Amino acid sequence: MPGSEFNIIQRFFTEPARLLSDRQGHSDIVLGIGDDCAIISPPVIGPPVAPPDNQQLVVSIDTLISGVHFPEQTSPQAIAHKALAVNLSDLAAMGAEPCWFTLALTLPEADESWLASFSSALFKLAEEYNIALIGGDTTRGKLAITIQVAGYVPQGKALLRSGAQVGDIIAVSGELGAASIGLDIVLEKNQKTYHCLSEKQQQAALFALNYPSPKIKEGLLLRNYAHAALDLSDGLLSDLGHILKASAVGADVFLEQLPLAESLQCLAPEQAWERALSGGDDYQLCFTLDSDKWQQLKNIEPHFTAIGVITDTHKLRLLNRSGELFLPRNGGYNHFE
Amino acid sequence: MPGSEFNIIQRFFTEPARLLSDRQGHSDIVLGIGDDCAIISPPVIGPPVAPPDNQQLVVSIDTLISGVHFPEQTSPQAIAHKALAVNLSDLAAMGAEPCWFTLALTLPEADESWLASFSSALFKLAEEYNIALIGGDTTRGKLAITIQVAGYVPQGKALLRSGAQVGDIIAVSGELGAASIGLDIVLEKNQKTYHCLSEKQQQAALFALNYPSPKIKEGLLLRNYAHAALDLSDGLLSDLGHILKASAVGADVFLEQLPLAESLQCLAPEQAWERALSGGDDYQLCFTLDSDKWQQLKNIEPHFTAIGVITDTHKLRLLNRSGELFLPRNGGYNHFE
Repeated sequence: MPGSEFNIIQRFFTEPARLLSDRQGHSDIVLGIGDDCAIISPPVIGPPVAPPDNQQLVVSIDTLISGVHFPEQTSPQAIAHKALAVNLSDLAAMGAEPCWFTLALTLPEADESWLASFSSALFKLAEEYNIALIGGDTTRGKLAITIQVAGYVPQGKALLRSGAQVGDIIAVSGELGAASIGLDIVLEKNQKTYHCLSEKQQQAALFALNYPSPKIKEGLLLRNYAHAALDLSDGLLSDLGHILKASAVGADVFLEQLPLAESLQCLAPEQAWERALSGGDDYQLCFTLDSDKWQQLKNIEPHFTAIGVITDTHKLRLLNRSGELFLPRNGGYNHFE
Repeated sequence: MPGSEFNIIQRFFTEPARLLSDRQGHSDIVLGIGDDCAIISPPVIGPPVAPPDNQQLVVSIDTLISGVHFPEQTSPQAIAHKALAVNLSDLAAMGAEPCWFTLALTLPEADESWLASFSSALFKLAEEYNIALIGGDTTRGKLAITIQVAGYVPQGKALLRSGAQVGDIIAVSGELGAASIGLDIVLEKNQKTYHCLSEKQQQAALFALNYPSPKIKEGLLLRNYAHAALDLSDGLLSDLGHILKASAVGADVFLEQLPLAESLQCLAPEQAWERALSGGDDYQLCFTLDSDKWQQLKNIEPHFTAIGVITDTHKLRLLNRSGELFLPRNGGYNHFE
């Protein structure tokens, strides 16, 4: 079946890519398609270098399109921030330190004040995360931004989706669901999801949508703790599913433990869970780790929250306090559904 | 003045990028925005490695948009080929060996047969040039393809735009102007430019437009010859202008020496020159080298053609056999004019 983004990548690109890189002896490519980033060990010809000190390069590419990834009325500042932030978030999910990025910018016209706002917000975030813009391309068309980021990680230290082990605790780096309320506010949709929020709380939801904070620092810390990690872009259900599939395990998620954003307070518990499970754009990290290490990590990062455990069931089960199964109405976000 | 692609990059992105990478001590970034590719020396922590043996990473990103970079009726095979080929061409222009690429694909719908054709043509070219697809992103929207390529080049061996020296010979790697006729044929525009061509010759012009051959082999050879190089994407006049500006020199180009494609034969000489000078999409390399080395290089690659000399005039002059100046009506292609 075509129709889902994952199927498209899997069917038309992953398998030929694997065959090609296997056959031609690309020994520099440590990990190709399928995780948050690819991993490369650049070839160094000359005296061998002690492997544990070698840095590997991790890279990721993401496109944001006006009207798809952000509403058309979004400000140039928010667009620039988000385009770089979602890519930095992929580096965070690998435990990588940002180093450089390239930008392919498609613009309907060369609007000077738009460009000035866009570029200044872009460089503000770049400076905050110490990442350098090294190349780009501009072209004319409907507004779209493609950014490719690269980062460094010590050899063998990258956080993959495939390392989750039965018995691991599943945790997230912070609150879930606020961005999905922000999107309702922008689109003036489902007013019941935000009618009870104060103006300040509505602003906070908009901020969560437009100005996500990539969890780079948290990713660096997790190098020494996590067995598996990714960032939440399409919703917890869909994204945690990638860890389960890549690691060939199952999971029990405990609904009352989900760290619900304050923005979800207008909703009944079931509706709030739906948002925390299926709302996109949270850009928190989701990771698994040995249960023995949880308390130590929680002491360092008190806002990390345990939400479940890895099981050998090969299923993702959502359980309430009474142990009853919860069946959400929506999965994660899918561009092609 | 906004309005030109080069001005946009210069004004809004180059200067802040330079300031940022200077201030924060990005010692791995050897060359940022402004050439065909950026150059990175990945950090290797551990015993120092003899510098001349180190490989540097060169990267470049390019977007192709339906209706802008290719006519909307273009086949998925041709789109895939061209999207990867124009990026490989940037690597060729640096003298780099292709290693990996990432793909950000925006599609109006998940059309299975379109995707099968696209991906098989993409991997065919990737296999030919031994480059591996390592990551990607798919999203929904008007058809657009962004590819970022990376290649390796021994430290200090990359071909830059900035090395041209007064007295250098200016040469190109092959025939010019065919792709611009191919575009007229597709768009059924300016029929007088191709009315005298046979069907076979028209097919050859279409092939030049849709299936450019990146000059990787030629770029590797030029590492040992060229002072400056780039690839011709927007037309010789505009692109040679980048070498002159980056090298702070001028040039005399001799019109009768331009290697005109057979596809230009329906045109009067002046019109054919215009096409060779201003037609886009040729993807030949243009380079400068010491005049003493020219004959040696020409013996290895007989299809290389000398077209002019680098001067200290700071002007680009187009001269006919009688030494008269020729003033073309068009410059190169500019997305924002």
